[in-house]
Amino acid sequence: MATKDKKEPQQKQVKSKEAKDKLNTAGVGKEEDFSEWYTNVITRSEMIDYYDISGCYVLRPWSYNIWEQIQAFFDAEIKKLGVQNAYFPLLVSEKALTTEKDHIEGFAPEVAWVTKSGQSQLSEPVAIRPTSETIMYPAYAKWIRSHRDLPLKLNQWVNVVRWEFKHAVPFLRSREFLWQEGHTVFSTKEEADKEVFQILRLYKRVYEELLAVPMIEGLKSEKEKFAGGLYTSTIEGFIPTNGRGIQAATSHCLGQNFSKMFNIEFEDDKGGKSLAWQNSWGITTRTIGVMVMVHGDDNGLVLPPRVAPIQAVVVPLYFSGSDNSVVDKRSEEVVQLLKDAGIRAHLDARPGYSPRDKFQQWELKGVPIRIEIGPKDIEKNCVMICRRDNREKSSVADASLVQTISETLQAIQANLLARATKTRNESITPITQWPEFVPTLDKRHLVLAPWCEVPECEDGVKKRSNEESLKNKDESEKGFRLTGAAKSLCIPLNPAELRDLPAITAETCCFACERKAKKWTLFGRSY
Amino acid sequence: MATKDKKEPQQKQVKSKEAKDKLNTAGVGKEEDFSEWYTNVITRSEMIDYYDISGCYVLRPWSYNIWEQIQAFFDAEIKKLGVQNAYFPLLVSEKALTTEKDHIEGFAPEVAWVTKSGQSQLSEPVAIRPTSETIMYPAYAKWIRSHRDLPLKLNQWVNVVRWEFKHAVPFLRSREFLWQEGHTVFSTKEEADKEVFQILRLYKRVYEELLAVPMIEGLKSEKEKFAGGLYTSTIEGFIPTNGRGIQAATSHCLGQNFSKMFNIEFEDDKGGKSLAWQNSWGITTRTIGVMVMVHGDDNGLVLPPRVAPIQAVVVPLYFSGSDNSVVDKRSEEVVQLLKDAGIRAHLDARPGYSPRDKFQQWELKGVPIRIEIGPKDIEKNCVMICRRDNREKSSVADASLVQTISETLQAIQANLLARATKTRNESITPITQWPEFVPTLDKRHLVLAPWCEVPECEDGVKKRSNEESLKNKDESEKGFRLTGAAKSLCIPLNPAELRDLPAITAETCCFACERKAKKWTLFGRSY
Repeated sequence: MATKDKKEPQQKQVKSKEAKDKLNTAGVGKEEDFSEWYTNVITRSEMIDYYDISGCYVLRPWSYNIWEQIQAFFDAEIKKLGVQNAYFPLLVSEKALTTEKDHIEGFAPEVAWVTKSGQSQLSEPVAIRPTSETIMYPAYAKWIRSHRDLPLKLNQWVNVVRWEFKHAVPFLRSREFLWQEGHTVFSTKEEADKEVFQILRLYKRVYEELLAVPMIEGLKSEKEKFAGGLYTSTIEGFIPTNGRGIQAATSHCLGQNFSKMFNIEFEDDKGGKSLAWQNSWGITTRTIGVMVMVHGDDNGLVLPPRVAPIQAVVVPLYFSGSDNSVVDKRSEEVVQLLKDAGIRAHLDARPGYSPRDKFQQWELKGVPIRIEIGPKDIEKNCVMICRRDNREKSSVADASLVQTISETLQAIQANLLARATKTRNESITPITQWPEFVPTLDKRHLVLAPWCEVPECEDGVKKRSNEESLKNKDESEKGFRLTGAAKSLCIPLNPAELRDLPAITAETCCFACERKAKKWTLFGRSY
Repeated sequence: MATKDKKEPQQKQVKSKEAKDKLNTAGVGKEEDFSEWYTNVITRSEMIDYYDISGCYVLRPWSYNIWEQIQAFFDAEIKKLGVQNAYFPLLVSEKALTTEKDHIEGFAPEVAWVTKSGQSQLSEPVAIRPTSETIMYPAYAKWIRSHRDLPLKLNQWVNVVRWEFKHAVPFLRSREFLWQEGHTVFSTKEEADKEVFQILRLYKRVYEELLAVPMIEGLKSEKEKFAGGLYTSTIEGFIPTNGRGIQAATSHCLGQNFSKMFNIEFEDDKGGKSLAWQNSWGITTRTIGVMVMVHGDDNGLVLPPRVAPIQAVVVPLYFSGSDNSVVDKRSEEVVQLLKDAGIRAHLDARPGYSPRDKFQQWELKGVPIRIEIGPKDIEKNCVMICRRDNREKSSVADASLVQTISETLQAIQANLLARATKTRNESITPITQWPEFVPTLDKRHLVLAPWCEVPECEDGVKKRSNEESLKNKDESEKGFRLTGAAKSLCIPLNPAELRDLPAITAETCCFACERKAKKWTLFGRSY
């Protein structure tokens, strides 16, 4: 017997197959218990570790690397738009934090306060930033004097803290998270409006091109918009397993609300004073959680090739009676060949693990392509490859290896987006009458409905959907709640992209009240 | 008259020459009042803005961009060593923070405590990380089981908070700062030792190759080493203007102290249990302040080309009676030509500023090369260039422009390092007797002296140097204190690189006490 693990004496205390399977797999079906599945997948794949402060998590290299790739893409794109990076302090005084009233009302209950250093009380408590409008804008007011100082476009990649008491979910809702926050200032509303949607489109590209998760662009309702802002644009994702919508990133036009409170004025080219127009926009590490939930399967993560830290893993297969050094040598060659072609390849030549263990572990970690190389493959001048997204295996001739791997990575990337888009589209149901609402949600669908956009109506939608949902309590045990209030997710910019929908006319009624409808609006239970 | 600023009506309210000079220059000589000079230079060049929480500062794009370049270099280098990036929480529980006693004693007085969220008291206060040993190592203890899990090499780029009550200096000592912290774990002391110095050499390269600031590698004394660690290696810089040493970056071997307290054990290849060997190492935004202090002059910043956000600024010169569009067109061409060659070039075609204003502003911001293009230059197929480091002007033929700019940038980079190294070397004086100590410090020099390495002796050096220094009180008004205690900066790894020094023998006495000397040690007043 020549497998390496049998040679090594310290490998004798081999764990039972069941014990290993427990650690090498998700341990539970995604549909069976979504919540446990998610926890198992993100911890066992080494993306996340739990921490002794509730709601805070460790981002291990397997997830942080994906964040680095999102950063690299987005950072390069905003620099093309003339945005520069900067760093503003973590801490904010009470005075600055409370300058804009609507804004602080939105954040006040979640703010973490530092009151002590060492054994001494601070003379005035300071807050940890939940977002940096109130930190940056006093400086903006100093820096901006003339129209020639505009536009001002700054961004920072930082941590923020929001001490939420809602149930924490790693990546999706944590008390500390990483994000970028862009804060820009313009002379005119037109420039601000234009940038809001330029940024929104970049966010959509992060999800669709990098993470292969389809997004719906839209505007938030009055109740759901950013505290203190003028309007909020958003991209909304969909988690099929529990039928919930999820806010994926937002780009806000702040209008002149903050510039008024912080005195951000500029001298225009006629010598008069004007209030500046402002935007702020952010995307967070939530990206990673959405990607995990959308693509993962019962075997673990399924990573889109564009962001996978390892795109192809080579597993050498040893057979008794063969010269394993030939297998090792060829495996190393293949990895080098792929690396030279710019593919993130990795050799798993670890002794002490069976091929079965290795296959399971790399599937759990979601690596897009596994390449198996054994003595027979070498004899036949080929390798065996296995796709993570559909688990299809095929033999590839050495001569076309690099090209095939390259094309297969592209195919996987495209397939993941197409598959998720199909599922998402099939899970959006247009309705026009209230009685259809909760039953549609209960099919784990989102709802498109003609809506009046009146805040009181949205309050009613939340209240009534929550009450009617309580009938479904028996479903709540499966690790995803089918109960709960629904709210507006967004007013889609292009609802026609999602469905052929009848036009809203002067006669169209709101699905939930007696008022006239304004727009087709996306509703759902959400994160 | 055809200069653009005269065409624009809104430029009529031109400020007085004196008022503009005040904002466009350092405003005070570097030797005249170093402290005011530093504040003026870093604020007027738009590197730093002050903030309403004392000891916290805004890093504006002009400094943050330099940090990004340091990050890019160092991050790529550590990844070659197999280090991976991760992100651990900002907040730490009291229990974890206080696990290693010597460590917490070192940091306790500076720790910022969060005690409240919204209006609610937290059930247990949590601390903001002053450094992350106590945050990361409980996780390491879970992850590390076998020698096959080692080495483990993680790094994070984060903010930390140390609520110091010493006088804050932007970049050099602030209550929040940015850094990377690497935390690595090995099976053997040999591996840990090796990495300590690999990292130290990378830190030296950051300063010498990127920032053109010479460094002395050494070991910290027992009193100056990292709290809880085994030994600390350091690179030490020198600020000629006040003759102070400055700790520039440190790489610590933690030995087994933390692994013992946090139970980081691994099963070795014989089946026994061993405590792991650990290192931690960090470099901060202090880098930028050291660079400013070393290279800056009475006209403002002097940026080394490798990290300058703009390496060459093109200023078009307009003359009356000439066709200024030709000047504009040629200036744009030159900028594009340089950009195509990978040079960070910038066109300053702002209307409303005279060439004199522009020259002053770009000198203040430290841009390495200014390129002036006027109608006569175009006629003669050349441009005028001016070096920031020595202010030499020369005419350069269009045909050799890219090559000359490229070579000049390299020459400036080399010149800055050579100049700073010469000054530094001339400011280190070897002594052997105590009476020479304070007078040498008072010449704004560092001291090399044979030392016994006994902690009580170092206490004596501090106390005595402080007492003797008080005589120089009259000097303290010049924005740099020549008074103050001196301490050991480091025990240089290669003192012979600094000076020809007599060997330390069994007869050599400590310069400060009656004990035997061990090594030539670098002493100085310091930041």
